[in-house]
This record gives sequence, C-alpha cells and structure tokens, in this order.
Amino acid sequence: MLEPIALPLDLPELAVDLSGGLVRRSVHPSGLRVLTEFMPGARSAAIGFWVGVGSRDEQSERGDAPGSLGSTHFLEHLLFKGTPTRDAYSIATSFDRIGAEHNALTAKEYTCYYAKVRDADLEGAVTVLADMVANSVLDPEEFENERGVILEEIAMAADDLTDVANERFFEEVMGDHPLGRPIGGSPETINQAQRGDVDRHYRDQYDPSTLVVTAAGAVDHDKLLEQVLTALNFSPEERWHTDRTATPVRRELRTDLTAIPHRDSEAARVAVTERPSEQINLMIGTPGLRSGDPRRFAFGIMNAVLGGGMSSRLFQEIREKRGLAYTAYSFGASYSDAGLFGMYAGTAPEKAAEVVELSRIELQKIADSGITEEEHERALGQIAGSTALALEDSDTRMGRLARSELGSGELFDLDTSLERFRAVTAEDIRSIAAELAAAPTTVVAVGDTSRSTLSATE
Amino acid sequence: MLEPIALPLDLPELAVDLSGGLVRRSVHPSGLRVLTEFMPGARSAAIGFWVGVGSRDEQSERGDAPGSLGSTHFLEHLLFKGTPTRDAYSIATSFDRIGAEHNALTAKEYTCYYAKVRDADLEGAVTVLADMVANSVLDPEEFENERGVILEEIAMAADDLTDVANERFFEEVMGDHPLGRPIGGSPETINQAQRGDVDRHYRDQYDPSTLVVTAAGAVDHDKLLEQVLTALNFSPEERWHTDRTATPVRRELRTDLTAIPHRDSEAARVAVTERPSEQINLMIGTPGLRSGDPRRFAFGIMNAVLGGGMSSRLFQEIREKRGLAYTAYSFGASYSDAGLFGMYAGTAPEKAAEVVELSRIELQKIADSGITEEEHERALGQIAGSTALALEDSDTRMGRLARSELGSGELFDLDTSLERFRAVTAEDIRSIAAELAAAPTTVVAVGDTSRSTLSATE
Repeated sequence: MLEPIALPLDLPELAVDLSGGLVRRSVHPSGLRVLTEFMPGARSAAIGFWVGVGSRDEQSERGDAPGSLGSTHFLEHLLFKGTPTRDAYSIATSFDRIGAEHNALTAKEYTCYYAKVRDADLEGAVTVLADMVANSVLDPEEFENERGVILEEIAMAADDLTDVANERFFEEVMGDHPLGRPIGGSPETINQAQRGDVDRHYRDQYDPSTLVVTAAGAVDHDKLLEQVLTALNFSPEERWHTDRTATPVRRELRTDLTAIPHRDSEAARVAVTERPSEQINLMIGTPGLRSGDPRRFAFGIMNAVLGGGMSSRLFQEIREKRGLAYTAYSFGASYSDAGLFGMYAGTAPEKAAEVVELSRIELQKIADSGITEEEHERALGQIAGSTALALEDSDTRMGRLARSELGSGELFDLDTSLERFRAVTAEDIRSIAAELAAAPTTVVAVGDTSRSTLSATE
Repeated sequence: MLEPIALPLDLPELAVDLSGGLVRRSVHPSGLRVLTEFMPGARSAAIGFWVGVGSRDEQSERGDAPGSLGSTHFLEHLLFKGTPTRDAYSIATSFDRIGAEHNALTAKEYTCYYAKVRDADLEGAVTVLADMVANSVLDPEEFENERGVILEEIAMAADDLTDVANERFFEEVMGDHPLGRPIGGSPETINQAQRGDVDRHYRDQYDPSTLVVTAAGAVDHDKLLEQVLTALNFSPEERWHTDRTATPVRRELRTDLTAIPHRDSEAARVAVTERPSEQINLMIGTPGLRSGDPRRFAFGIMNAVLGGGMSSRLFQEIREKRGLAYTAYSFGASYSDAGLFGMYAGTAPEKAAEVVELSRIELQKIADSGITEEEHERALGQIAGSTALALEDSDTRMGRLARSELGSGELFDLDTSLERFRAVTAEDIRSIAAELAAAPTTVVAVGDTSRSTLSATE
C-alpha cells in the first residue's frame, strides 16, 4: 500500500526575487545555501543554521535500529556540548554574555540552531553556531548526561496533556508514516540510544548540502557570506553563485497520505488516552494538505473562518454560545508528502461528546453551504493583517526563508501572497471543506474519559 | 501582625522624559492618563487600556463576599460581551477582520485590554477598546455562559502542573496577604459569583482615575489624545495637562512581606500537592523585593547569575552537570507592597530532594562568596543585550509605559537603566543573596511525591 516515490521532488522555480530585492540567495559549490533578508531600520538580526533533516528522516538510510528513533533530537542537544575549541560552558556563555535569544529546535523535517542578537553581535553568533554545527565532538560523557536531560524533557511533555493529544493525533492520523512518530523518540528508544547511532546520524546527514543559513534584520548579505565561509573554514577561493535551481530534498517520500480520500463520511474513529484530569483534550481531524498543495490558499481561508479567531465558527459555537471550552480552534500542518487537518478543544469530560459533534457539524456546514461573503472578506483581512504583523519580526522572516528553501522553494512577498488568497473562489473554499468532511475522521481524547460518553473504537 | 499602611504611596517623581523625548504623557482633568512612545520606522502600534485594579484589590472595599473573589477576571471576560452599540460578535469581528493580535489579561495589580495592529487600524482599535472598557452592559445571559468558560479556564490551569505549582507558591509564601490569592478565583467562588458582585466591581473601580491608556510604535501622541477623547465621549473642551505628579494607587497596602526577615536559616517548609505525574514541579523560595526596592538592580544581577540563562549556576549544576532536569531557573516577582523570589525546576520524583538541596546550596554559595568578576561582567552584558532586544517590540514598550505608570512611576531609558545596574557593587550582590538565603524557605512540590523523599512539613 505504501509506495516510496522517486526523487528529486518536482519543485517549482524559486520565487525569490534576486534582482535587487531585499531577499538574496547564494549557493556555495559545496551545496551550502545562504539566504538573507535585509530589513531597513532594524538594529538586530535573527540568524539560523538549518539542517534539512528531521525526525521523520531517521532510520530511512540505515535499517531498523530502535535506538536511532529520537537521534535527530538527541544530536540537537549534543551540539551544545562542545567542539575541539569550545566546551559546553563556553558555548553557553558566548550567547548569554550578549543577552542573545537563542535556542535550537528539532522538527519532523528540519533541525534549527538560532539566535537573535544586536547587530554588532551578529558575527560572534555566526562563529559559534557554525562551530557547533560543523565541529561537534559528541563527547561520550556528555552523551550520558544528556540522556538524562532528554528523558526529563520527554517526562515534561508527558505531563502536558495538550502535548500528549498532539502526539497521539499525529500517530493516529498518520499511522505508520514516518511523520506519525513523536519527534523526540520515547523513553524506551532514548534509554537504548547509543552514541554510535547519533554519531552516524551526524556524519551522514550534517553536510554542506543539507545546510541552509538564513538571516533577517540588520544583515549585510555579502558580509554574512564571508563570515560564514570563515566560520566554516571554507576556502575563500571558491565562488558563490546564484543558481535558481532548487536543491532537492534527500528524502524518501510517501504520498499515501497526500491525497484526501474521497469516501462517504462515516462514524469517527476514537482513540482514547486515559489520564486523571479536569479537562479532556480533544483533537478531531483527518489527513490534510501537503506543503505545495495548490489548494492551500483555499484551505487558509476556510480554516480562518472555521477556527481561526474569536469570531470563527468553532469559537462562537463552542465557547461563546455554549461556554463549553476556554480554547477552541482549527489548524493545518503540512509536510513535503503529507499533512493533516485538526480541530482542538479542551472541555469538561461530560461535554466531550457534544464538543466532538459540534465540531464535525461546523465543518459539515461549510462543506454543504460554504461561507458567507462577509466571512470571506473578513478572512482576507485577517490574513493580510496578521501576516503583515508577523513579518515585522526578524525571527519570522528568518524562519520563512529557511522553510521555503527546505520546503516548497516558493517565497512570496506579502502582496503576491495576498493575490493568491484573493484569487480563491467561494466554491474552492466549500470544496476543500467538503473533502475534509468526507475524509475518515479520527478523534483523539486525552484525559479522564471515564467521566465522558466517549469510548475508544477501532 | 498585618498593618495596613497609609496612602498615598511615596512615589518618586516621574522619570519620564517629557522634554522632546519619544515618550509623552498627558493627564486629563478626569484623571485619565495617556502615555505614548513613538518608535521611528514602525508600521504598527500596540495599544493598551489598563485599569489599575487587579485580583488583590478584590474585597478590600466591600467586605467579605466570597463570590467576589475572581470578579476582576470575570469582569475582564464580560467586557468582550457587548456594549449598547456593539454585541460580542461585533467586538470579535472588529479585531479579527484586521488581523489584530488582541487579548486581555488580569494580573494581581492591574487588568489590561490590548491590541497590536497595523498603523492604519489604530483608530479603530482605540474606538472598540474604549467602548468595551467604558460601556459594557454585563448582559445577564452572557454572564451565565461566561461562568462556564471561566470554569473551563480554571480546569485547564488545574491540569497544568507548572501553573498549579506557581499558584501554590504564591499561596504558601504570601500566606493570607491578598497577593497570595489565585487571580481567577476558584471553582467554588466562580460558582457562587453573582452578576451584582461583578457589576459593583465595574462601577466602583473602572473610572477615568484608574484608567491608563498606553501606546507604542507608529503612534502620534496628539492624534491619539483626540481619538481617546472621542472614543470615551469626553468633552473636547477640557484640556490635557502634563502634570508630573504621580497618581497614587488606591490600594490598601500591607508591608508585612516587604522586608525580607533577617532570621537564621532553617529547614525549608515543604508544601506538597499530590498529583499523578512523570515529573515533580518544584518551586523553592522566599519573600522578595517590592517593586520600588532600591536593591532591585543588585537582585537583577544576582538572579541572572544564579538562574538566568544556560550559563547560570542553577542550569549548570542541575541540568548540565547532572542531567536532573530539562528546565531550571530563578526569578523574582515584585508588587507595590511585597514580592517573592523563587527557583524552579521540573525533575523526576526520585531526584526532587537532590534538586531542592542543590538549589539551596547554589543560593548559599553566592550568599557566602558572591559571584566572580567574569559572571558580574557577563550578567551586565546579558541584561544590556536582552533589554535592547525586548525594547524592539512595541508590545514591550507599551506594557512598560503602563506598568511604570501604575507602579513605581519610574521610567528609565536603556542607558540610565544600565547605569543603575553598573553602579551595583559585588558586595550589594552578595548581600541580597545572603538576605534571601537567610529568609525562611518554602518548597512547593506538585506531582507524584509518593515516589520522592520529600514530604510535607509545617
């Protein structure tokens, strides 16, 4: 049933405006890519070293070593633990003494090491981040210590019922697709992890061809190129070029979740995780859109109206009219070959079945009758306003550059993006809701389900 | 034992630079204050309507009505539910259709209604926020519905063990001081709440003399004054003035927690909340500094070194050397008449006693020997860098204006603030640590304490 498809991805030509715009992209002969976005007036910059490898890519190249599940995240931790010229304390102090906002994150399709710093501190941040990414020693003693830290991180997430519901939702909707696995592994795989697994992952996956450096804010592209070359010990002789060809992702894709199945609606499958709690955390959803899906603009508008704000239908029906929840919203998550769509609410156990029903009804209403013109207009205004506000942050722009480069390859300016949203028709919106409403629905319920009328089904 | 002290507060003269600076302050004859900070180049603005009344002020003027506990927060919810000219849906859509970031928050000493919007949308946001704050109808049907929403909000917080630990910590350290109470009340008080309690609170407390409007970013002070007058239906004839005298807070103060008691150190008192969990959430601390305490600059440096970053002593000892926690930090919280100091870590139940011991040892080490020169320098750099980054956000500046106006009355620019930090001596730092280390220590432990060696003491 699951067919890996051939590489490379059929990426559209990069939409980055290289001709005098504020976004610039350079490709090094090694494959390393650097993208910057200069923001006039900015006095700080956000910089990220992005590796196009995430938890879903584990195991794909080296068979079944259970201890390797979670190795991407384990590696992310270890990269803070030292290089031949910097120990862990020195890495920590180099960020702290400039008051940098810095951290790292492991996602399903990438890993990122980033910092936000005052303009004068940018070169220092580049130097340390490059050293961490390129020259980690993965010290064996630090390995054992970090195992404990990661087990505590997993324990912390296990105590957060919203986190638990989110992980369960991916597992239930994605099934055995690699996107269904938890990013950090499990206590079992972390306890089994061997330094060799993580080291092999580092040697195999961290090389210039998977590395993307992005920066936004008070950044000079040419200066940054020099700083990156120096920091990575590359020869200054090799010339950067501005090749517009996207670099294909080295990844086995599985498209079995990409298309939303067109089936008759049926009773939702319910997956229950019993925990003592005051609220049940509910996630209700289906497979959704992959990153490059042309229907994503229609989905964006549909999602805003369904569950994207205080005036959205889910918020109004569940919270404002009935007082059943404090939080109620809908969302989409898209990856290179698959995605998912979900509706979330936290509610009293006795009300959980009603909230599930209300959520499904609201989706079905849009599937049947679409949205009103007033809602359509409002959603466009909401997307325009919130996007404009988000793009004021250098962190947002830095992340957008990288996710574009590592994902679809598309990078729209605000106006072009809004044009795409404005081109969506009422029928496009109704149609995407209809596809989602017709897809097999999964309900994840985490909490004290003994007090609810929800029960697990297969 | 508890003595209310006389009003007004002994506030220092406002340090706001009114002479051509970027911060401007105007006082209306009604008592309403408006403060703005223009940020060159900004294309958006953050605006807040702040009422100088928080959960601690409940009951003080009208005796013991148990249903009134939580009424400040209840009122905050109801202000979104409609005015004579705007129903709840209209309020929601007016923010959503411009993609505003908007919300409200109730704190112990203030309540705030805010929005961040594109520059062109500022006037509209002012109009709606002013109407919400000045003309709420507190509809009885909406009152009942919102009771359900608030009970769900409290249930959500009860499922979050970090939130539970935080509330317990205030209760245990503050005792029967009004700052010790949970902001939102309890399920019992919310179930008992009567519309009359909330309505009385609204009539008594929400008037121009407690209202402060602050804005930062793309804002023109004079235009905003006009917009605020129009939105609040004030006569355009009454003249604003720039009185530099701080407006005293109308609040019964209780200074019994203000001074850190100079007692011999003793065994910590342990307050246990048993919950099924993977981790124990630990908070370890003492009474701390009130808002205007002159030792706050020394405390800021001490706190940065003790638990303010990856290179801090708590993070190094608990996480980096021993792998006992994912999160470990220290903090201070200051209010007009009292404050507290705490150290937080989430750890496995079997390790909880060790983490408590390690935390107390690290504080004691600074109390005994101070910090190193390198740490002192680094903390100054950390404060300078992180403050500069934070002040890039209009939200931060908007909030800073209001908290200054409603609190100490002091507002320093970055350079002046850093001068204060630089004036701190090594002995000031050691001394504040010594006072905290000598104060009676409270340990709050939330989680599966049956697996730990911690047990409750009195």
